[in-house]
Amino acid sequence: MADLIEPRTLKGFRDYPPELMIPREALLEKTRAVYRSYGYAPIDTPALEYAEILLGKMSAEAEIQRQLYRFTDNGGRDVALRFDLTVPFARFAAQHIGKLGTPFKRYHVGPVWRGETPQAGRFREFWQCDFDTIGTESNAADAEAALVIYDLMRALGFERFTVRINNRLVLNGLLEELGLADRAAAVLLALDKLPKIGRDAVIAEMTEKAGASAGQAERVLALAGMKGTDTEILDRLTSEFGGNAKAADGIKRLREVLDVARVSGIPEERLRLDLSIARGLDYYTGTIYETFLLDLPKIGSVCSGGRYDNLAGLYTKQRLPGVGASLGLDRLLAAMETLNLLPKTATPAPVLVVQFSAEHLGDYQKMARQLRAEGIGVEVYPEAKKVGQQFKYAEQRGFRVALIAGPDEFAQGVWKVKDLAKREETTAAAAEVASAVRNLLAV
Amino acid sequence: MADLIEPRTLKGFRDYPPELMIPREALLEKTRAVYRSYGYAPIDTPALEYAEILLGKMSAEAEIQRQLYRFTDNGGRDVALRFDLTVPFARFAAQHIGKLGTPFKRYHVGPVWRGETPQAGRFREFWQCDFDTIGTESNAADAEAALVIYDLMRALGFERFTVRINNRLVLNGLLEELGLADRAAAVLLALDKLPKIGRDAVIAEMTEKAGASAGQAERVLALAGMKGTDTEILDRLTSEFGGNAKAADGIKRLREVLDVARVSGIPEERLRLDLSIARGLDYYTGTIYETFLLDLPKIGSVCSGGRYDNLAGLYTKQRLPGVGASLGLDRLLAAMETLNLLPKTATPAPVLVVQFSAEHLGDYQKMARQLRAEGIGVEVYPEAKKVGQQFKYAEQRGFRVALIAGPDEFAQGVWKVKDLAKREETTAAAAEVASAVRNLLAV
Repeated sequence: MADLIEPRTLKGFRDYPPELMIPREALLEKTRAVYRSYGYAPIDTPALEYAEILLGKMSAEAEIQRQLYRFTDNGGRDVALRFDLTVPFARFAAQHIGKLGTPFKRYHVGPVWRGETPQAGRFREFWQCDFDTIGTESNAADAEAALVIYDLMRALGFERFTVRINNRLVLNGLLEELGLADRAAAVLLALDKLPKIGRDAVIAEMTEKAGASAGQAERVLALAGMKGTDTEILDRLTSEFGGNAKAADGIKRLREVLDVARVSGIPEERLRLDLSIARGLDYYTGTIYETFLLDLPKIGSVCSGGRYDNLAGLYTKQRLPGVGASLGLDRLLAAMETLNLLPKTATPAPVLVVQFSAEHLGDYQKMARQLRAEGIGVEVYPEAKKVGQQFKYAEQRGFRVALIAGPDEFAQGVWKVKDLAKREETTAAAAEVASAVRNLLAV
Repeated sequence: MADLIEPRTLKGFRDYPPELMIPREALLEKTRAVYRSYGYAPIDTPALEYAEILLGKMSAEAEIQRQLYRFTDNGGRDVALRFDLTVPFARFAAQHIGKLGTPFKRYHVGPVWRGETPQAGRFREFWQCDFDTIGTESNAADAEAALVIYDLMRALGFERFTVRINNRLVLNGLLEELGLADRAAAVLLALDKLPKIGRDAVIAEMTEKAGASAGQAERVLALAGMKGTDTEILDRLTSEFGGNAKAADGIKRLREVLDVARVSGIPEERLRLDLSIARGLDYYTGTIYETFLLDLPKIGSVCSGGRYDNLAGLYTKQRLPGVGASLGLDRLLAAMETLNLLPKTATPAPVLVVQFSAEHLGDYQKMARQLRAEGIGVEVYPEAKKVGQQFKYAEQRGFRVALIAGPDEFAQGVWKVKDLAKREETTAAAAEVASAVRNLLAV
C-alpha cells in the first residue's frame, strides 16, 4: 500500500463530476436537438488522424503546430489528435461527398485537443459543436445559420444575447475602396482584436504591422463603428460603397439574411449587423457570425462562424463552398460555472426510494420501474441504513422526493411520499404514487 | 492542385456518416436515459492520462501494453489515450470520492482507443457505455445492475435477448471443493472460452495450461452445464456445495438477484442463471453478467460486467467495492449494420420545405420554425432549384413529407403537403399544416 499511484489529471485537463456533467450533457443534448430540427445530420470522425491531413499546408510557424498532440503510433504512422472539427470535416467531405451528394448539412459534436497554455475557462481538451451546410453558395444557407444560432441560444436557456453578423465581402470592398486591398488580411486581423485590445492598440497594429496609414486605419475604424439601425447602416454603405462590386454583393446578402430573420420571427435586437466583427481567419469569405452574452461579455463570442469559398481544397478538386458555425460548449459551461449559473444537483433522478428492509427490494424496484416507465427518474437506496441517513444522502445529492414503505405500508398497500424541500409527507395508495410524485415535481 | 493530400482515415478507424451516426446517436441517447432513470449520474474524464495511471501495475507482457496509444507530450510527460473507462473511473474515484461521498452511482459514455488488429466489427476507436455503483457491498446494487441491463436492452429496441448471470463466489467455492482453489483463475479463463472454442478445447486448456486433472476438468464442465430451472440448479448447488462458505454466500446472492428481478417485473426468460459464464478478468469477485442477443449470438456478449472487491486500490487506501457493467455500443451497431437492422435514412428531419422562390425564404423559415417549435424537424431546401430536383433530393435522403408553397399558395394562405412515400398531395391552410404533417408522420 506504500506505493500508491497519485491520482491526478494532466495539466490543462479536467474531470467532469456529476454537478458539472449533468448540465453539460443537457446542453449537448439541446444543441443536438436544435441542429437536428433544421435537418443537419450527425457525423463522427476519428479523434486520431494522419498528422499530414490535420496540418495540411499550414505554416511551420503556426501556433497550432506547437499545440498539436502529435506522435508516431505503433505502426510507425505520424498521427495527431484533431485540434478542431473543421479540418476532419474537410477530409470527410472530400472522401465521401460523391456518395453523400450536395447540398450536405452536417453537425458534429465532440472533443478536440490543443496543448495551449491553460487559463481560466480554457482547457486542453474541449468540446466543439459545429454545424455546416456545404455544396451551395445560396444565401438561404447563410440566413438559416443565423436562425440556427438564435434558436440554439434560446434552447440553451439564454434570453439576453446578440448574434452579430457581418460580411467579408463588405469589409473587403471597403478596404479596396480605401486602397487597402493587398493588406486586407492583416488589417482585418487587427480589427478583429478591437473588443480585446481597444481602439488605440488596433490603430497601432494596423499602421505598424499591417502597413496602413494612420488615416486609413482611422477610416476603417470609423466605418466599423458606424452608428444607426441595421437598415440605416446598410443604406449608408450602399450610397458610399455601392459602386464596389464586392461591397454591393455583401450588402445585398446581409439585407437578405436580416430580412429572412425578421420575417421568420427572430426579434430584431437578437440579430444585429456589426461592421466591426471580422473573424481572424483568412478562411472566411462571406457572412460572418459572432454571438455575445449580454451578461457575460468578457468570455467573448460563444458561437462563431461564417461562409467560406471552399472547404476541402487540400484534399479534392471538387469545390465545396459552405457556411456554418461552432458553439464553444465547454467555454460556455466554464463561464456558467464561475458565475454560479448551474443548478446544484448531483443526481439525474429526482426521486429516492428509501430502503427500509432488504426483503422488499423487489417491491421497491417494482415501484421504481413503474415510475421510470412514465419518465420519472428513480433511485433505490442500495442499503437498509437508518432512514435519517438516507434522507441526509437524499438532501446532499439534491433529490426532491422520497418514497418510503415499511411493513405497515406494505400491509396497507400505501407509500409515504415526502417532499424533501418542504419536509412534508403524505400517504398515497400504490396506484396513486406516480401522480403524487408528478405533482410534487411539477412545482 | 497537383499535390492534393489523399483523404483517408487511419487503419482500424472509421468515419460515421449520417446513415450510421443517426442510429448511433439514438442508441447513445437511449442508453444515457436508462442510466439516468436509475439515478446513475454522468461523469467525464480526459481522453489523455498519465501512462503511469492507465497502466498501473499491469505486467509488461499484458496485451494492452502493445495496444496502447502512448507518447511523450510537448511538456515531456509520458501520456496515453485511455483504453477503457474503468481505469479512469478508478483514478477519478480515488481523487474525488471524499467530496462525492458513497454510495456513488455513475455512468460514463465515451470513446476509448486500442491499437488492436482490426477485424469485422472491431475498431481501434470505439465507444463504451459504463455504469457502476461503488462504495457498497449490498446485493441490492447487484440486483439493480441486472434490471438496468434488462431495461437498457429493451430501450435499445431488443426483445429477444438473455441476460446471463453467475457469481464468482459460487465458481470459486465449487473449485475449492474440487481441489482447484489455487488454479481458479486459469480454470475460469479456460471456462470463459467455452462458447468460442468448444468443450474439448476447454478441457485441453484446463488440463494442459491450468494444471487440472482430466476428471476435475470434466467435473467443472458438468457443473457449468447443469440443466434445470434456475431454482432447481440453485437447490442442487445448495445440497452439493452449501457447506462451502463462499458457494453458500454466492448462491444466496444469486437467489436474491433473481427474486428481485422477478418481483420487479422482469420476464423470467430474459434473466437466466448460467454457471458457465466466468468473465475472463481476475478483477471480478461476485455477481457477473453477460448479455446475448438470441438473433445475433455470434457477436458475443453485448453488455457485460460484475461485482468487484475494490475499484481503486492502485490510487487510494479507501476500499471501494462496487458493481457495474459496460455496453459495447459500436460493436452492437456494427453488427446491426452488417445485418441490415438499421433504418435507412440520412436526415434527422422528416420534413422538407421546397424552395419555390428565394423571395419567400422568410416565409419558408417561419413555417419551419413553427413546426420545429412543436418538435417536428424541418429542413428548408437551400436553393430554388426545379421542384423535381428537390423531390429527388428528398427521396434520396429519406424525407417523409414535403411542404410546397409558391405565389398561388401564398396568395391563398395555403400549403401543399405531400406524403413522399405515397406520392399523395393535399392542401392545408397555413394554420393546419402542423396537424396535417403530424398525421402523416404518425403513420
